[in-house]
Amino acid sequence: MMMNFNLSIAAIMRQALMVAADTEIVSLFNDGNVHRYTYAQAFSRARRLANVLDALGCPADARIGTLAWNDHRHFELHYAVPCSGRICHTINPRLFPEQIGYIIRHAEDDLLFVDPQFIPLLESLQAELGSVRHCIVLCAADQVPASSLPGLLSYEALLEAVDDHHDWPELDERRAAGLCYTSGTTGNPKGVLTSHRSTVLHGMAQNMADSVGLRALDVVMPMVPMFHVNAWGMPYNAAMVGAKLVLPGPRVGDAAAMIKLINDEAVSFSLAVPTLWANISQHLDAHAAAVPSLKRAVSGGAACPLALIEAMQRHGVALENGWGMTELNPMGSYNRHQPWYAALAQAPRGQQLLKSGRAMFGVEMRIVDEAQRPLPHDGQASGALQVRGPWVRSGYFGEQTTEGWFDTGDVASIDSKGYMQITDRIKDVIKSGGEWISSVEIENAVMAHPQVAEAAVIGLPHPRWSERPLLVVVARQDHPAPSHEALTAFLEDKIPKWWMPDASAFMQALPHTATGKVSKKTLREHFTDFAWP
Amino acid sequence: MMMNFNLSIAAIMRQALMVAADTEIVSLFNDGNVHRYTYAQAFSRARRLANVLDALGCPADARIGTLAWNDHRHFELHYAVPCSGRICHTINPRLFPEQIGYIIRHAEDDLLFVDPQFIPLLESLQAELGSVRHCIVLCAADQVPASSLPGLLSYEALLEAVDDHHDWPELDERRAAGLCYTSGTTGNPKGVLTSHRSTVLHGMAQNMADSVGLRALDVVMPMVPMFHVNAWGMPYNAAMVGAKLVLPGPRVGDAAAMIKLINDEAVSFSLAVPTLWANISQHLDAHAAAVPSLKRAVSGGAACPLALIEAMQRHGVALENGWGMTELNPMGSYNRHQPWYAALAQAPRGQQLLKSGRAMFGVEMRIVDEAQRPLPHDGQASGALQVRGPWVRSGYFGEQTTEGWFDTGDVASIDSKGYMQITDRIKDVIKSGGEWISSVEIENAVMAHPQVAEAAVIGLPHPRWSERPLLVVVARQDHPAPSHEALTAFLEDKIPKWWMPDASAFMQALPHTATGKVSKKTLREHFTDFAWP
Repeated sequence: MMMNFNLSIAAIMRQALMVAADTEIVSLFNDGNVHRYTYAQAFSRARRLANVLDALGCPADARIGTLAWNDHRHFELHYAVPCSGRICHTINPRLFPEQIGYIIRHAEDDLLFVDPQFIPLLESLQAELGSVRHCIVLCAADQVPASSLPGLLSYEALLEAVDDHHDWPELDERRAAGLCYTSGTTGNPKGVLTSHRSTVLHGMAQNMADSVGLRALDVVMPMVPMFHVNAWGMPYNAAMVGAKLVLPGPRVGDAAAMIKLINDEAVSFSLAVPTLWANISQHLDAHAAAVPSLKRAVSGGAACPLALIEAMQRHGVALENGWGMTELNPMGSYNRHQPWYAALAQAPRGQQLLKSGRAMFGVEMRIVDEAQRPLPHDGQASGALQVRGPWVRSGYFGEQTTEGWFDTGDVASIDSKGYMQITDRIKDVIKSGGEWISSVEIENAVMAHPQVAEAAVIGLPHPRWSERPLLVVVARQDHPAPSHEALTAFLEDKIPKWWMPDASAFMQALPHTATGKVSKKTLREHFTDFAWP
Repeated sequence: MMMNFNLSIAAIMRQALMVAADTEIVSLFNDGNVHRYTYAQAFSRARRLANVLDALGCPADARIGTLAWNDHRHFELHYAVPCSGRICHTINPRLFPEQIGYIIRHAEDDLLFVDPQFIPLLESLQAELGSVRHCIVLCAADQVPASSLPGLLSYEALLEAVDDHHDWPELDERRAAGLCYTSGTTGNPKGVLTSHRSTVLHGMAQNMADSVGLRALDVVMPMVPMFHVNAWGMPYNAAMVGAKLVLPGPRVGDAAAMIKLINDEAVSFSLAVPTLWANISQHLDAHAAAVPSLKRAVSGGAACPLALIEAMQRHGVALENGWGMTELNPMGSYNRHQPWYAALAQAPRGQQLLKSGRAMFGVEMRIVDEAQRPLPHDGQASGALQVRGPWVRSGYFGEQTTEGWFDTGDVASIDSKGYMQITDRIKDVIKSGGEWISSVEIENAVMAHPQVAEAAVIGLPHPRWSERPLLVVVARQDHPAPSHEALTAFLEDKIPKWWMPDASAFMQALPHTATGKVSKKTLREHFTDFAWP
C-alpha cells in the first residue's frame, strides 16, 4: 500500500534541482582553463543531450561509450544517457588498445563520446568500431581534430542544435543504467551492468552518516576517474545531497595542480588511489604547502599503507579506507574514522585505520573456508570474502546470471564489530606448509621502512614449503636500497616469524595494471627463474 | 544484472548482528527498574517470538496488534512480526476506546500483545475483540493480572517454552510489514500499511548524513512512542547503524525521570513532540540541571516554537525540526542544522530554524494552487503541499490505491534551497478577503511573548472579510493574561498588518487530539457563537 515509486537516477536529478539548483560544478581542463556552471545548467544541458541522442536515432536501450576524463560533459553523459533509458558505458582509456577494441565490440556501442586526446587511440582501433554509428568529440565545433575517422561530430554543436525541453521517461528501477568492464589480469574484460536501482541504493548507503556521508556543505572532488565505476559514485552521490562538485580532468597525477584546485575551490572531500595520495603528501611536505579545507578523503582501489594515512593526518586530512569492486557498483565497505580510534594505543590504532571498514548497509559479507563453511567474525580467522546485496552483480554482460553469494576473490578477516580487513587476493595468497601467508600484511609492514617507496610480496615455488614469500622492493628516490638483512630486521617484530620473506629483490619500478594496481601476475612471471638463496 | 536482493527488515537485523551484536538496548519501566541486554540477545528472543507466533497458529499474513510503550519486548515485536511475514499493528492507547475498538475490528487483529496496564482498557472493549484469538500480556507469568478477559497468556512464559532457532523466510520487499492508523479529527481512523521496502528506504534516507544521520556512536532515545509510526523509525534505524537504543517506557511525560535516563545512559540523540521538550527545558531551567551528552534532538508531530529551540540551544541541544505523517512511514523532511545558520542575523536565523527542512532523498515535494498548478519554490508562494515517493502511501488499508501525488493537507512554502515551511493545515487556513492568513505563523510569533504558554489562531466567520483570525491564548502559570492590545502591540512588527487578529480570547487550556496536537476543530466549535467586538 506504498507508492510504486521507482528508484531512479532521474530522482537524483530532481533532488539536486530542488535543493541545489545554484550549486556549482567546476571542471579543470588540461590547458588550465576552469569551467563552472550550476546543477540547473548541467541538467538543462543533459536534457539537450537526451534530445541529441533521440535526434541521432539512438535506440532505446543502446550502449553509449565514453572515453573521457572527469569534467562537466562527462557528468552530463552520466545523466542524459541512463535517464533516457540508455546505458552509459564508461571505457577505461588506460587499458591496452586491444582490450578497448574488445570492449567496444563486446558492448556493441552505438555511439562513442570521446575527449579530443583519445582520437588517435580510436584511429588505431577503426577495425573494431563496426557497431559505432557516430563518434562525438567532447569539444566545440572548431576544436574537433583532423582525423582519419570519418564524420566526427562536435558535442557542443549537437547540443546547440536542439532545445532543452525533454520529459524524462518513467523507467523501471531494475533497468540497466551503466556498464563498466573489469580489467582482470587473465582473460577478456567482463562487463558489469549496473541498474538505476543499484546506483540509487549504493548512493543512499554511501551517503549514510557512518559511511562516506556526504553533506550539502561538502565540496567533493573525485580524482578517481569516472571510468572507474563512475568515480566510485560521486557524480550521482554529490548531486543526491546537493554538494558542490569539482571535476579535475586529466591532470590528477599533477600534485601541484591538484593542491591548487583543492585550495581554489575549498575542496572538503576527495577520492583517489593511494599512489595519488602519496604524490600529494610528498608534494605538501616538499613545498611546505597546506590543504586546510580538505578534511576527509578516501583511499581505495589498492591497499593503503599506514605511513600514508599518518602522513595525510599530519596534513589535517583523515584518509579513510574504502573497499569495493566493479562488481559492487563499486563500494562494499567503508572505514569512517570514529572518535574512539583516538583512544587506542598506537599499534591497535594503526591496525584499525588499515581495515577496510564495515559493510555498507545493504551489502552482506561473510568469510568462508575452502569447503564454503562460514568462518567466525573474531578478527582472527581469515577466509574467502563473499558478498551479496542489491548492488552486487549477479552476472556479467552477455553471460548467465546466478543469485547467491558472490566470491570477491579477496581473502579477509572480519572482527566482532564488523570491521573487515583484506589480507590478500586469493590468487596472491602464499601457501607455505599448508598455511596461508598474507602478502598484503607484509607489504603494509615493510612500507613503513624509510628507504622503501613501494613493495610487493609474491609466493614462489619452494621445494620444501610448497611456496615461500619473496619481497620485491623499490627504493625511495635518492635513497640507497636497503639490504635483505636490514629489511628482515625491520620486519622482525611486525609479522609472524614464519612469514618472513626468504629473500629480497630490488627493482626500479613495479609493474602495474591499467587500474594502477601492482600486477603480481607480471611479477611472478618476471621471477619465474628465481632461485632461492 | 544486479542481484535480486530484497530490501527487508531482516537485513537490518543481520546488519546489527554483524556490527553491533554486543551493543545495548536499555529499557526503563514504570517501577523504575531498568532492563538491559544486547542486540544479539534481542534478536535471539525475536526468533523465539517468531516460533511462538507459529506455535499459536498465527496465519502467514496476520495482523498482530500491540498496545505497548517503548521497551525491549515491543522492540522484539517490531522484528519477529514483520520478519516472519506478518504485520505489526501498533495501536495508540491514547485514542478514544471506541476508536481503539474500531481499529482492532477493522484490522481483524489475530493476536494482541498488551502491556499489563492496558488490560482494563481491553476489558471495556471485549465486544470488539471478535477476531482476536489470544491476548498475550507483555510480562512474566506471575505478573499477568487477574482479568475478566479469558485465557490471558504470558509473553515470557510463551518465549520460555520455545527455542531460538528460526530461519527467517525470504520475503518480497513489497510485502506489508507494519500497520498504523491515523487519528484524523473527522471520520474513522484509517490504516496506513508500510512495507519492508518502505521501512528500509525510509531508514536509509533518514540515516543519510544531512538528514537524521544516526551513527554507531550515537545513543538513541525515542521518547515518541513506537505506536506513533514506529517511534519515527528508531527501532529500525538505530539497529541499521548499530547505535545503542534507550527505550523510556511509559514515563516520557516525567521530565525528571527522562533527564536522569539521558544522563545515566549518555543519550546523544532523542526524539519527541514539542510539549515533552518544553517540559524538559523547563525542568532543566528550574533545577539548574544539565544533559551534557545530549547533542541533538528531534522535534516533530507539531509545530515547534522558536523560543523552545532557543531554550534547548542554551542547554547545548540542537533541537531539529522533522516533518512527517503516518502516511509517510512517517518522515518526509528534516532540518539538519547547518554551520551556515550561525552566520545569519537573528531574525532570518530564527526563520531558518523554524523550517521543516529539506525533503529527504526519495520524497519529492511540490506546492500547488487550487487548480493543481505547481507554484514556484521562492520561499514566498504558499500552496497545498503534495508529496510522492517509495514511502508515501498509495491508499489506506482496505481501500483502493491511487498512484500520483499525495495531498498532505498541509499548506507550505518551499525556498530555492528546498527548505519547506509549513504555514498551515488546509482546513485551518484563514481565508480573509480572498487571501490566506497563516495561523501557524501568527502562533509562532505570539509564542515568544513572555506571558504566553500556548496559543492557537482560528478563523471565524466575518461579515465583511469572509473570515478573520481569533487569537486564543493560555497564559503562563503564575503570570497574568496579557491584554488583546498588549498582544497585538507585540505582534506589530512580526506579521503583516492585515493578518492581525481582530480579537483575543483566553482559556485555561487548549483542547488537544489523541496525538497531542491542538484540536482546532474543537476550538472552532467552542467559539461558534463568538461575536466580533
